[in-house]
Amino acid sequence: MSSLLEQLIEAFRVLPGVGQKTAQRMAYHVLEREREGGKRLSEALATAIERIGHCVRCRDFSETEVCVTCASAARDAFQLCAVESPADRLAIEQATGYRGLYFILQGRLSPLDGIGPRELGLDQLSMRLAEGEVQELIIATNPTVEGEATAHYLAQLARQHGVRPSRLAHGVPLGGELEYVDRGTLSHAFGSRSEMP
Amino acid sequence: MSSLLEQLIEAFRVLPGVGQKTAQRMAYHVLEREREGGKRLSEALATAIERIGHCVRCRDFSETEVCVTCASAARDAFQLCAVESPADRLAIEQATGYRGLYFILQGRLSPLDGIGPRELGLDQLSMRLAEGEVQELIIATNPTVEGEATAHYLAQLARQHGVRPSRLAHGVPLGGELEYVDRGTLSHAFGSRSEMP
Repeated sequence: MSSLLEQLIEAFRVLPGVGQKTAQRMAYHVLEREREGGKRLSEALATAIERIGHCVRCRDFSETEVCVTCASAARDAFQLCAVESPADRLAIEQATGYRGLYFILQGRLSPLDGIGPRELGLDQLSMRLAEGEVQELIIATNPTVEGEATAHYLAQLARQHGVRPSRLAHGVPLGGELEYVDRGTLSHAFGSRSEMP
Repeated sequence: MSSLLEQLIEAFRVLPGVGQKTAQRMAYHVLEREREGGKRLSEALATAIERIGHCVRCRDFSETEVCVTCASAARDAFQLCAVESPADRLAIEQATGYRGLYFILQGRLSPLDGIGPRELGLDQLSMRLAEGEVQELIIATNPTVEGEATAHYLAQLARQHGVRPSRLAHGVPLGGELEYVDRGTLSHAFGSRSEMP
């Protein structure tokens, strides 16, 4: 096999969920049918890696020092939503009508992996809360063990600065069938039942 | 969202089996954790697209006019194996002890998609067979309707040049269970049973 081709296949394996077979299929696909698209991908990758950094306000990916959302006058600065990743931020932005601002932790507390408050930019968040503008910290970390631990830590931090912490509701997913909902969720949903109007 | 990020996500969608969600995950993964790997991928893509062309003998991907396999004196020029794609060629090369040469069709006959003998380089194959060196044409197109049609066409072509055409054996896969083998295959395997030694 051509060694440039081998290098390309190897390089594709850097992508998440891409093993030897998939990398091979991608390399062949690009060379056989998508040379133009492959060129665009090569350029988009190089440009993005060179020019995308992190917003100094919210830590989201940004081409500018302050990202478009943080710089926008149309967003409500009283609400701040803390999420683990840019993907979570995007999911909330697309699914809800939320008009406040975000803070992207870029991870969750995980002492065993060496990820503490400093790595999540919590000193920065603390300064942000101390500014006094934020009134509610919406904590949208994932409902995993580490995500919950992070949520508790963030709630404490918020209270220290007189900011009201809130957490996304847990319960049975819309459209889900009770039979297939996991026990923890079902038990929580049952305990947190509300009276019907 | 940063527009360079949007462009990167869009660019990833050129890869096979990559939709919006996966493209997003790939872009975030590269920017969060694999900037070095991403740079290597960008460079490998650009170099491969610029420098990998097709071997003039076998139509496989090659950096040189004649690929390493075709140029090798160690390969047996009496046997020529026709496959649909470079991936098929690689599978045969890795699984078997085949020491002959290959011819990569880069597709299969599919008149409705405008893929005829010319697109598969069959005039080139015809000239190759006319040279008189090849004695056996091993036809390893896929056992699909179009692959079989292509195989029949190739067999005719071989006979016109006095070359013996052969086809990979069909039957029950090794390690397969009869119960789960499709009817066509089982029926074929039953009809083509051979006496045990």
